[in-house]
Amino acid sequence: MRSKPLIIVKFGGSVISVKDEPKRANLEVIKRLAAEIRDVIDSSNLIIIHGGGSYGHPYASKYQLHLGFKDRSQLMGVAETRMAMEELNYLVVSELVSAGVPAVSVQSSACITAKSGEIAEFEVKPIELMLKLDLTPVLYGDVVFDEDLGFTIISGDKIASYLAVRFNASRLIFACDVDGVYTSDPKENPDAELIPEVTVEEIEVLVSRMSTRFGKRFDVTGGISGKLREAVKPASAGIDVLIVNGLKPFNVKRAILGEDVVCTRIVRG
Amino acid sequence: MRSKPLIIVKFGGSVISVKDEPKRANLEVIKRLAAEIRDVIDSSNLIIIHGGGSYGHPYASKYQLHLGFKDRSQLMGVAETRMAMEELNYLVVSELVSAGVPAVSVQSSACITAKSGEIAEFEVKPIELMLKLDLTPVLYGDVVFDEDLGFTIISGDKIASYLAVRFNASRLIFACDVDGVYTSDPKENPDAELIPEVTVEEIEVLVSRMSTRFGKRFDVTGGISGKLREAVKPASAGIDVLIVNGLKPFNVKRAILGEDVVCTRIVRG
Repeated sequence: MRSKPLIIVKFGGSVISVKDEPKRANLEVIKRLAAEIRDVIDSSNLIIIHGGGSYGHPYASKYQLHLGFKDRSQLMGVAETRMAMEELNYLVVSELVSAGVPAVSVQSSACITAKSGEIAEFEVKPIELMLKLDLTPVLYGDVVFDEDLGFTIISGDKIASYLAVRFNASRLIFACDVDGVYTSDPKENPDAELIPEVTVEEIEVLVSRMSTRFGKRFDVTGGISGKLREAVKPASAGIDVLIVNGLKPFNVKRAILGEDVVCTRIVRG
Repeated sequence: MRSKPLIIVKFGGSVISVKDEPKRANLEVIKRLAAEIRDVIDSSNLIIIHGGGSYGHPYASKYQLHLGFKDRSQLMGVAETRMAMEELNYLVVSELVSAGVPAVSVQSSACITAKSGEIAEFEVKPIELMLKLDLTPVLYGDVVFDEDLGFTIISGDKIASYLAVRFNASRLIFACDVDGVYTSDPKENPDAELIPEVTVEEIEVLVSRMSTRFGKRFDVTGGISGKLREAVKPASAGIDVLIVNGLKPFNVKRAILGEDVVCTRIVRG
């Protein structure tokens, strides 16, 4: 059916927004990424997913949305979080459209339902029909409604990993704010070395070492543990999974085109 | 399960936007309707659907989206139309939230797929879970992806009618810019009389009389024919269907509460 390869690209929240400043988008980066995407849409079918960054996390944490429904005071918080995420998504989609990409927003909370904090049902038919037309669907991590918890947070990483497996994508690219997985926190340790390849079997050890040795900061800033965990299923299914630095120009474009790029590659082993 | 009645309210595009002025919302009316909704959310579960008005029709018509996919030049039109509809939806949702309604946008194109221009599949589980939490889902007429046509337009009227039947709602209220169905076009004929009750059996005759006798204008301005057609299924299922004037204060609130209101009621007969 599809002649072009399907590639899933996740823009990290820390790439497209300015951390620690509520509702501040990193517009220059979004514009650059939009131009990189435009340059490759003739050669690939793409699904783009973005994180919440400073549009999602402050609200989710203020109203404790990741813990699910506790009391009715959270309901206006759900409404506000959803609105903030729509604002960020609108910015991303409109920059893609301005660059010439026929990008179409797909609201995660309208097509995904969760059970105990995990994706339970995902209506992907609209996405399938968009891809057939060579449109570029743009999803995002968001509040999602949950059979057991009322609501929960489903991250952009989870959505990207799910869609890569469900659509048997050729490649899954996590564009984040570091070059990949390091031997220690590169923001604190100048001797930290990039690990060019991680096998699925090594992930568990790496993730537990990160949480104990590097502490919470490493995980929160890079979100690398989460990406590694979400890489297990697609990498096991033989999908090419890359963690690249989206803040460095042309990395995303090169990764999509399969060109050489500084990164950590997660392989079946 | 539900103790409160479920009521579906459709805000007409000509009520919430200024006709003939692209992307001009009728903010005062939206604010007033939001306040009317806030006054009734403790007594009813609500699903709100809105039309496209001057945010949808100019784009859909410019790119001929109602005819389905013809050529790739329409793809950027699909992207632009979707963005314009998101803008209008964001305005409606944010006024509802400002008024104190825990309103949550539900993107029609993410949960509906069509076949030959009609709703084929509708993932309603997110809406079900929102209603359980007493959140107020807000959908809208929009471009929807279509198995046969590539894409099509699914009107807010169609979505409202579909959801009324699917959820077995107590009442379906079409808030438009006239008081209901008239014996002739009230905007052209001062002797036109409001018809207080229409049976399902009378609808076909009324609709064909409108299209021949009153001409196209009557239909386009009021969209009454469309509403009557979409009223057949819910009214046949015993759902209370009302066409009221949403430009007149308190009509929507009264209709939701089941109080007396100038309107046309569509009944099984």
